[in-house]
Amino acid sequence: MRKGFFLTIEGVEGAGKSTLAERIANVLRACGREVIVTMEPGGCELGVRVRQLVLDSANVISDRAELLLFEAARAQHVDETILPALSCGAVVICDRFADSSLAYQGYARGIDPDMVRTLNDFAASGLVPDLTILLDLPVDKGLARQNGVDRVSSEGVGFHESVRQGYLALAKAEPDRFVIIDATESIDKIVKRALEVIE
Amino acid sequence: MRKGFFLTIEGVEGAGKSTLAERIANVLRACGREVIVTMEPGGCELGVRVRQLVLDSANVISDRAELLLFEAARAQHVDETILPALSCGAVVICDRFADSSLAYQGYARGIDPDMVRTLNDFAASGLVPDLTILLDLPVDKGLARQNGVDRVSSEGVGFHESVRQGYLALAKAEPDRFVIIDATESIDKIVKRALEVIE
Repeated sequence: MRKGFFLTIEGVEGAGKSTLAERIANVLRACGREVIVTMEPGGCELGVRVRQLVLDSANVISDRAELLLFEAARAQHVDETILPALSCGAVVICDRFADSSLAYQGYARGIDPDMVRTLNDFAASGLVPDLTILLDLPVDKGLARQNGVDRVSSEGVGFHESVRQGYLALAKAEPDRFVIIDATESIDKIVKRALEVIE
Repeated sequence: MRKGFFLTIEGVEGAGKSTLAERIANVLRACGREVIVTMEPGGCELGVRVRQLVLDSANVISDRAELLLFEAARAQHVDETILPALSCGAVVICDRFADSSLAYQGYARGIDPDMVRTLNDFAASGLVPDLTILLDLPVDKGLARQNGVDRVSSEGVGFHESVRQGYLALAKAEPDRFVIIDATESIDKIVKRALEVIE
């Protein structure tokens, strides 16, 4: 039985996921907890190499290939980084996880959600987050905040709107795991709300 | 409805798959057929990049991640190379395809074969070879013939023996699709037998 706590942060491009992850980590570390901040795709060497491959706008990648690449990165990330940290009792904060595949490749790309769930379950060895924070905000605000664009984030507004609606549907279907936070609020308010939920 | 013919060649390392593919292609081309010779992983730009990733002995790759990488390469290969060629009426000869995932990741690595079949079906969009030639030979003879070693081929003899037994079980289960050819025979005899089967 794992002893740690697995927190994932989800949301559309520019929602502030990585900033929130770092801020939460700093507070928890100050309280003496061991915290690992990681991300998908990434979080291990193979994940970083797959990330380069899948987000490079120069690459021609079909929807099914894209999903399978994300799942491959996830499988390695879970085995090499997340599960070992959880078994040591750490808090693992992950910027994107399996819900991203459902929102992006399921809802927005149109791949059968049951197939995405099957792949998520296989890739993650059945690991499910203890808590998922959905940073929700209007797509145009998120896209305006973005630092750079890649093969996925450069999709049109309609695509990202489908992602947002997908996330909201996922949160509605699993209210015990998901907490929705309004990402148009100040970062201090968002961090405060996130910490209340984690407690 | 596709008009071409999809031939896959399977077998353990060093069985002579690529040589047979080229020899068959030459004969069919001389008869006026359009023939594409391709391979997995590979056969398209993404496939080549995934091949480099998955076969590089320096990379740490879990069994599930390995399978998912092969399936990602397959999805792109099917969409970008195989289906377009088949729809133009070409003969597509593929050195390794979905049966490799069953033999290597299913039988030899021990991943649930039903999951491998689910992934194969998803990645290949349901495409199944019209004919599969299994070049069967004892593992020690195949390994002695190899040109180079990579992350998968450098596995021990026991691993490759499981792959061979997996292939034989697959061929037994689908006698209408599979033809087993003794790969210890001369290449001329193997080509002659393969062409008889294709006719």
